[in-house]
Amino acid sequence: MSTLIKNVHVLTMDDQLTEYKNGYVRIEENRIIEIGEWRKGIASAEEVIDGAGGILLPGFVNTHTHAGMIPFRSLGDDVPDRLRRFLFPLEAFMTPELVAASTAYAISEMLLSGVTGFCDMYYFEDQVAQVCDQFKIRAILGETIIDMPVCDNVEPSGGLTYCETFLPKWKDHPLITPALAPHAPNTNTYEGLKRTVELSERYDVPITLHVAEMDYEMQELAKQYQQTPFELLKDLGFMNRPLIMAHCIHMTEADIALVATAGEQVGIAHCIGANTKSAKGVAPVKAMLSAGLTVGLGTDGPSSGNTLDLFAQMKLFANFHKTFEKDRALFPAKEIVRLATRGGAELLDFKETGQLVVGNKADFIIVETQSVNMFPIFDPYSALVYSANASNVAHVWVDGRQLVRDHQLVHHDLKQIKADLYEQMGQFVFEAKRRM
Amino acid sequence: MSTLIKNVHVLTMDDQLTEYKNGYVRIEENRIIEIGEWRKGIASAEEVIDGAGGILLPGFVNTHTHAGMIPFRSLGDDVPDRLRRFLFPLEAFMTPELVAASTAYAISEMLLSGVTGFCDMYYFEDQVAQVCDQFKIRAILGETIIDMPVCDNVEPSGGLTYCETFLPKWKDHPLITPALAPHAPNTNTYEGLKRTVELSERYDVPITLHVAEMDYEMQELAKQYQQTPFELLKDLGFMNRPLIMAHCIHMTEADIALVATAGEQVGIAHCIGANTKSAKGVAPVKAMLSAGLTVGLGTDGPSSGNTLDLFAQMKLFANFHKTFEKDRALFPAKEIVRLATRGGAELLDFKETGQLVVGNKADFIIVETQSVNMFPIFDPYSALVYSANASNVAHVWVDGRQLVRDHQLVHHDLKQIKADLYEQMGQFVFEAKRRM
Repeated sequence: MSTLIKNVHVLTMDDQLTEYKNGYVRIEENRIIEIGEWRKGIASAEEVIDGAGGILLPGFVNTHTHAGMIPFRSLGDDVPDRLRRFLFPLEAFMTPELVAASTAYAISEMLLSGVTGFCDMYYFEDQVAQVCDQFKIRAILGETIIDMPVCDNVEPSGGLTYCETFLPKWKDHPLITPALAPHAPNTNTYEGLKRTVELSERYDVPITLHVAEMDYEMQELAKQYQQTPFELLKDLGFMNRPLIMAHCIHMTEADIALVATAGEQVGIAHCIGANTKSAKGVAPVKAMLSAGLTVGLGTDGPSSGNTLDLFAQMKLFANFHKTFEKDRALFPAKEIVRLATRGGAELLDFKETGQLVVGNKADFIIVETQSVNMFPIFDPYSALVYSANASNVAHVWVDGRQLVRDHQLVHHDLKQIKADLYEQMGQFVFEAKRRM
Repeated sequence: MSTLIKNVHVLTMDDQLTEYKNGYVRIEENRIIEIGEWRKGIASAEEVIDGAGGILLPGFVNTHTHAGMIPFRSLGDDVPDRLRRFLFPLEAFMTPELVAASTAYAISEMLLSGVTGFCDMYYFEDQVAQVCDQFKIRAILGETIIDMPVCDNVEPSGGLTYCETFLPKWKDHPLITPALAPHAPNTNTYEGLKRTVELSERYDVPITLHVAEMDYEMQELAKQYQQTPFELLKDLGFMNRPLIMAHCIHMTEADIALVATAGEQVGIAHCIGANTKSAKGVAPVKAMLSAGLTVGLGTDGPSSGNTLDLFAQMKLFANFHKTFEKDRALFPAKEIVRLATRGGAELLDFKETGQLVVGNKADFIIVETQSVNMFPIFDPYSALVYSANASNVAHVWVDGRQLVRDHQLVHHDLKQIKADLYEQMGQFVFEAKRRM
């Protein structure tokens, strides 16, 4: 089937940031086959969609989240050491059914806010993959490896064994890339980290992990290895693999230079919202980008960042980095939109996406401009970064399929998804309330 | 008429932060006459509204904005010295009709995002007052006084003359309080500032102004008066008047102590979004509150903060102050909601509002909890600060009148308001595009 989308302001996010102010896009199967400025004589299509003057741009890519953690949202937000007080203990009550129900909810939330692809790290990633397959969203799914018993593995570092089945099962899926996800350098054994690299090589899959997020992580690694986490990861061979490093708050100039020499397969998932809500700090993104590193934006899990959309992240990104670098002209809105879309697609190596050009895959969204917060628009990038919110997303396509139409999921019923999640949350809620 | 609102989670924002989880509110005329936990035997009413499990709380109060500046939104956001490059020159093209049309649009945006009262500073405030009167929103309206010719006064400091008519005309309005609004201490003459205080006394109206926003403001005042702006304002008598000081970024411990001795009639409109988007800095709100100062939140104008809702401000407030003070437990969500509602009502001296108790005026809102970003809710304050956005506001009452119902203005047509504004913007857009 071919689809013609017209009456849209297209932001292609190509190298020249080409825009089509009265633009159109034609898709066939899963690809863009025409894109440009509307003119007389353009042929119709089986399906024609009027974009109503909305902004059409590549889908947002959420480069770091934990989709299974919707049950934790708004739980213990402002308490110290929440990780050990709420997160770790309550994760014992996560079941495969609860993770699947949470993931369905999280994907719904992401799609409805214009996220067309994401990188996940959690437990029961086989269930997560099944849900992604149902929803037809693009994803990298990392099974967590950590040196302690967890909900899907009684053995410490059991994630490695899990991966031996999980990775081959999903590695040829058209939209899903399975991955290894060591929790962090300081929460894994040296041996566990080494085996992670070996499995990544054997199955030819990426690795994603938290790096340089915690101040105590830096101290522990300095004590144990006399290294920064980046030095350790390089020595272990992580930097030769496709590697998505989340957070990287405590990253020195030397660390940045080290990562810059590693090559394009290594990059950073920057989670400004989660990092600053927890007062952990502001990662040196200006320096990262100056050194040529690949950077995408991420929300972190719904317990850390509370929403899974990139609108809140873009606003926080702008204000934090401008203020920290004392430069209001730093990171103009168009650069932030680039990081949130194409930057994320590059980081996750979602090939033939991130730029709207003929031949690329049809992963894009329309943000409506009818709502009260979206007028006037002298600069569409400014409108997206500074005025828009997740509720302005009207339509979403992933790999040529329309998954959101007029602010609603096309193929799923959000009320049912919520009811299913609520049903699975019984024991979790009981245990959570005991700890509040 | 009496109205019964039920099936709501009420956050009263009283001293004990009393909540009614399955709550109800009854209003008659413009006041709350019953409020509490739902129980058998509660009488019905002429009008019954089902809150559908939403969160009912006092309306947000936007303590600093420029409602006339909607035409500037998304114009030159990331350029240095935007004030002198875009704002001052383009303000020459503001007409009374354009300010009125912009104000109607801005009030619509505020109401739809749950703002029930605001403090304005702009030109043609008589037109602004007329629009507020039509919309029935609560407001303090400050006519700008500045030592240069402006769109509504060819004489420098002509705002003072304007006020001689404007203040007596509106001072007895039930919802509107006219005010004097010197632009800033460094953009007015000493004489002009002195006359401001005299007029404030004569007409018994408040003063609002920008203070300690710009680094060059601090330098200019140090050079001219050998004083901080706060010391100057105190000497001039400003601190004896009801005084709303916007920004106060560059405020020392000594300045805070000085303001703390002034009394309750003086307070601060904190605009974290605008201040950090422009890389100006983070005002020392923790110290202000520790010293007992009254603080409310503000968006600044739609050119500086880009939206007029307090949701974006609450999120930015949380993340910036936690990060700046390196304390994730600082300013828990309930404290931030308090600043955005009751804090603002206290700052603007909107009497008998800000807390939902029997006898108080019915200024409150319902935030719906059906949207995907609003589940689960272990803590309603967390949900408001960290997950909600402006589009979640479903219903709004001001002074007992329902002004928003099911996300729509009850008494006005947003499309018409937008069309009117667009029509008035012709010359402005022409001049703006010449400068882009």
